[in-house]
Formats: sequence, C-alpha cells, structure tokens
Amino acid sequence: MRPVDIIGVGITNFGKHIEKSLVELGGKVAVEALKDAGVKPSQINAGFFANMQAGSLFSDFTIGQNVFYQAGINSVPVFNVENACTSGSSAFNLAWMGVASGAYDMAMVLGAEKLIIPNLGLMQAGTSELDTLEGMVVPNAFAMRANLHMATYGTTKEQLAMVSVKNRRHASMNPLAQFRNPITVEEVLNAPMIADPLTRLSCCPNADGAAALVLCASELSGRYTSKPIRVAGSVLVSGSYKNPCNLAQWEADKRASSIAYEMAGLGPEDLDAVECHDAFTISEILHYEGLGLCPEGEGGRFIESGATTLGGKIPVNLSGGLLSKGHPLGATAVAQIIEGVRQLRGEAGSLQVDGAKVFMAECMGADKAGDVKTCSVNIITK
Amino acid sequence: MRPVDIIGVGITNFGKHIEKSLVELGGKVAVEALKDAGVKPSQINAGFFANMQAGSLFSDFTIGQNVFYQAGINSVPVFNVENACTSGSSAFNLAWMGVASGAYDMAMVLGAEKLIIPNLGLMQAGTSELDTLEGMVVPNAFAMRANLHMATYGTTKEQLAMVSVKNRRHASMNPLAQFRNPITVEEVLNAPMIADPLTRLSCCPNADGAAALVLCASELSGRYTSKPIRVAGSVLVSGSYKNPCNLAQWEADKRASSIAYEMAGLGPEDLDAVECHDAFTISEILHYEGLGLCPEGEGGRFIESGATTLGGKIPVNLSGGLLSKGHPLGATAVAQIIEGVRQLRGEAGSLQVDGAKVFMAECMGADKAGDVKTCSVNIITK
Repeated sequence: MRPVDIIGVGITNFGKHIEKSLVELGGKVAVEALKDAGVKPSQINAGFFANMQAGSLFSDFTIGQNVFYQAGINSVPVFNVENACTSGSSAFNLAWMGVASGAYDMAMVLGAEKLIIPNLGLMQAGTSELDTLEGMVVPNAFAMRANLHMATYGTTKEQLAMVSVKNRRHASMNPLAQFRNPITVEEVLNAPMIADPLTRLSCCPNADGAAALVLCASELSGRYTSKPIRVAGSVLVSGSYKNPCNLAQWEADKRASSIAYEMAGLGPEDLDAVECHDAFTISEILHYEGLGLCPEGEGGRFIESGATTLGGKIPVNLSGGLLSKGHPLGATAVAQIIEGVRQLRGEAGSLQVDGAKVFMAECMGADKAGDVKTCSVNIITK
Repeated sequence: MRPVDIIGVGITNFGKHIEKSLVELGGKVAVEALKDAGVKPSQINAGFFANMQAGSLFSDFTIGQNVFYQAGINSVPVFNVENACTSGSSAFNLAWMGVASGAYDMAMVLGAEKLIIPNLGLMQAGTSELDTLEGMVVPNAFAMRANLHMATYGTTKEQLAMVSVKNRRHASMNPLAQFRNPITVEEVLNAPMIADPLTRLSCCPNADGAAALVLCASELSGRYTSKPIRVAGSVLVSGSYKNPCNLAQWEADKRASSIAYEMAGLGPEDLDAVECHDAFTISEILHYEGLGLCPEGEGGRFIESGATTLGGKIPVNLSGGLLSKGHPLGATAVAQIIEGVRQLRGEAGSLQVDGAKVFMAECMGADKAGDVKTCSVNIITK
C-alpha cells in the first residue's frame, strides 16, 4: 500500500439548490476539483460516487456515471456507493484503497445529494418497520441517548445546546453554510421540541449539496500541487451489534478512531481540528468521548469549557457542522474532509487554526437505539 | 497486488421468494458461503453488498450491514454498492481489490434483490425523464439495436429467438433457474410482442434471489479449500459516451474484455464457458461479438451454428442466463461468477463442461439508446 494525497477539491454551498439537478450539482464540483488539482478529466482513472437517495427519487441507478460525464470523465470504472451518512467517507475509503493499492494513480471521490422532495427515508433510516410504526424514528433514538448521558454523567440541557450555539458561531464565518445567523443557548432551549431534550435547533437540517476530491498517489502528487495533503489514516467499520450496548458511549467511534490513530501513528493530542457527525447536539458530545478528545462522561463539561470552539484546545466542526451547514447525505462526509484540506492548506480564512497540521473527519451512519451501523474516521496531515 | 481466490459460494434459486425478506435471503447465502468456504464469520475482514432497489423499496440505507449480521459478520467495514445490473460485479471488483491490495485477507461479496413490489425503476433505468415520457424505455432501446443488427449483418428473427431457446434448454438442467420448461423458436416468435422484434420470451424476467462469494488471498486459500478458484482478471469500465456510437456493436464489452484478457494472459480461444448479460436476446448476440467469441456481425450465425450450446465450441449461459434464470439485479453478476466456480470445480452436474479451466462472466448496466453506462468482465481460472 503506497501513500496517497489529496490534490484537489470542489464544493457547493449547502442549502436549497432548486434550480440545479443532482447531475448538474455534481458536475459542477467535479469540474472545480479537476481545476483545483490542475489535472485533465482523462487523468482520472476511477470515479467513486456517493449518494443515498437518487435511486429512489430519480430512478437513476448509474447516476455517478452521469455526474462524472459532466466533467468529461468517462470510460473509467465508476462505482456508486451508498452507506447512509457515511456514503461519502465509504467512497473515500474505497478510492484511497484503489490508489494505495496501485490499481489507480488518480481517482475522484464525489458526493452529492438533492433532498428537496419531502420523504421520510432518513427519519426511518436503519430501523425496522415495527420500530417506525411504534414511533422509534431517529430523533427519538438520539433523545434516549441524551437522557441517558444526562442521567449518567450529569450533562445538562444547556451543555447540549452549547453545541448548536458553537457550531452556528462557526457557520457565521463559513459562506458555504446553510444557516449563518448566530443563536443563543436560550433560543436553542426554547425552539419547538422534537424529542425531549432535543429541540428543532438541536437537530441538523436537510440540505442539497455536492463535494468532490481528487486523490493521487503521493509519488506523483508533486507534479500537480505544492500543497499535497496526505491521507494518514482511513477507516470504515460497521457496528458490533452488541446487546446490551451502552447507549451513552459509542463503541464504533472508539474502534474506528483507534485504528485510524494507529495507521497515522498519531493520537488525539496531535489533532488540530476535527469535523464530526453532529446530526444532533448529543452526537457531538458522544463523539468527543468516542474519539478520545476528552475522558468518558466529560463531553458536556468539555463543550462548556470552550475547548472545541475556534481558538480552543481542539476546535470541532469549524464548518458549522451538520447542525448549521446542513446534511446533504452523500456529500456530507466528503465536505468534512474538504474542510480539513482547507485548514491544512491554510486557506480557511477567518476559521483558520494557526499552523494546523493534523485533521480528523468522523462520520457515522444509520444509528438507532441499538448500535451504530457504519462509522468512518479519516485522518489527513500536511 | 497479490493473487486472490474464490473459496466459498452460496446461492438461492431465482424466482419468487414471497415468504422471505431481503435480509433473510441475503443472510441465508452468507451462511452457505461461509460453510462452503469452511471459515468462521469472524474471519471475514470486509463485506461488499450489492443491491439496487432496497433503498427505494424498503428505506434501508445500510441494508448490507443487516444482511451480513444475519451470518454473524459485524464490526468489519461494510460497503453498499449500487451499479445497476453490474452492482454485483462492481462489489466483486472492489472486494477483489481489497484482498489483492493486502487491506483484507478475506472478504465476502453478496448480491441480493427483492423485486416483488411492482415498479418501473428498471424499465426507466439510465434514461432521462424526457426519454421515458416519449416511450424510450429499455426494451425499445434494445429493439433498435436488434433491428440495426438485422439490417447491417443479416441477423434473423429466428437467430435471435434461438438465444432464448438455447438458454431455456440449459435452464431445464439447472434447478436454480426460474423458468425451466423447454421452448421452441416458434413459441418465442409468437409470444406477445414487447418491442419488435423482441417478444416477451426475448426479454429476461424479474426475480428475487441472492448469491454470495468468499474471496481469500491465494497465499492463504490452501488452508480452507483444495479447489481454490483464481481471479485471473477483474475489470469494470463505464461507457465512453461516444456520439455517434455504433448501436450494433458494444464498445464497452470490447474494452472491458480486452483489459481482462490482458490481465489474465488469456484470449477468447482459452475460454471454456461464458456467462453474459442476456437481458434481451439481442444482448447475447452482441456480447458474442464484443467479447471476441466470434467476428463482428457473425453473432446470429454463431448461435445458429450451435457453438454456444452445451457441448458446443464455447457454451454461453449454461445457467439459463438472465432470460431463463431470471434477473435479481444485485444478485445477477455474483450468480454468474458462481456458475463459473461450479464449472471449474467440476460440480456443474449435467451442465458440466468437461475439463473446464477458464471461465468468463460479463455483465452490463443501464444501457440506453446511446452508450453503455457500466460494463464488467471477470475471468476466473482453475
């Protein structure tokens, strides 16, 4: 397995893209990523496309091929990858493996999603029909986790709300984020209740969006960029389905991150910034603990300390996270990695972490009351 | 890249499986494949699941995880792969790459599909909304190819019908096939017309079904089986989207097979049996030519010569093909490879090709009037 670099990125703003088709959105970021990398479409040896709902919404079962074709990428192998919220990071992991193995010298990873058609697909994700009928949809499952964390570790509703407040503050500096107006703890607590203690401002919004990356064998990347970003660790795991499991701890996070730390030869203390899957406020608190950013049970106090805010010890979700940036499923995990590329290139503007050298992106899919279905951790370095 | 072997297989019959869920069907073949390989669930390092319509039919976006869990396979990376009719071979290609690269020692590929809920998804596959509205659905696009082939090369309706007759004769000896009663050229020609010259007996039927394979690094496979089957070449390509393209020739078939032949160090003359994507009778004729089994334009005369029947020069679709066995999308391409494993192991019963040593499986996805969207060729050897 040889080293692999990220040499180009492209991304849209997240939000409503009524005027563009999914194929157009994807084509746009593919062209951007090629341009950023300074490579021609014909130099891409394989395409990995991440999307969750195109099959059901548009009956297009080879949509990746149509997206890449918009950028002049054709003839090469194209894989359509679907893995709930980790669709983008699963595609990334496969593309990384393809280049690391020597099968491809250069590959594009592209995630895109259009969610403008109302449907319950995501609400029900990962559940059984019986669960859904009985009301066990995703927000309820996360509310259970939040309540258990509060009861077990003394985490407060205010601490949960601080996650939304922090991520919105970051989003206010990110022109690509969907919601950019600052909010207060009081506003989060007083927003309409979805599933106690999670209010509407504690849950991430849907969004349309697309994001693309060009991966290149490190031995070749010097030809294209003076700022290659190394993939130091790339991991995907699925749930262990342990029963009983601990709803107030994420075993999959611990497992995926420990493998990634080992691959990278780094530890949590080396991270300069993290993007994690804050689908709900409680998620981010659990990720702090699962990824080793703070000890078990300390997540609530960790957010309150300011450690994860811009300027703090380890800033988390500088992009605004899913909570403020929005969650275009297939694009989400690709966009997280792009946030890291910008930090490590020193191109993050007012969100820049001085001297950032090591970045982690974590994503998680289709969690329900039981265990996590899929979890990814990627570590990239300067 | 190190050599990779197939060491275990599991498959259901193709047809209606009203009594079983998709997860149950998949779980069943996963257990069978493990048993056939003689390995424990904990020895599988990654799972690659192929399916087209579970997301839209069942709102389950991490269904692969649920399927593998039925067989006790959890915690490991699980990828859900979707690539129209080549979903199964795309998953196979990725799993092969994972083991060949050294990332995994052992991986399972599993394709499964339930199509009992009527929908037009497949009819419209790969088309634009405008095309569909104007009647350009899949059978029509293949009828155009058939008419052009007839006009250009003198192929006859009878020769087209012979493909169905031959594959049904093979299916009559395959207990796993959906339709097993022999049919005649006259019956094919007189069946209800779908899109001239393609009658109902010229088009493959839907089916439910599942199929699984265990891949293992060749350096380890001796521990598990005395009959390892080598993956000699594994290729996925997408269409070249050339315009104008030649509707009576499949450029993607030629491209994918020439790469696969080169990887395997073999040519068409070395093949002992082939499974190809006979979604329509004309498809098989075009594949003969695209894969180099006969010269361009000779496909009609090639079927008529008996060359592709059991006992002929190069038997094609001994399983009965999609035309008689049925087409459970995600499972189809995996099942094709299993047919080869049985031939090379000498376990094909009355369908056995004496001394079979080299087998090719070809699959193709989402073809429309233009070019092919995705095409796979896998060559396996004894």
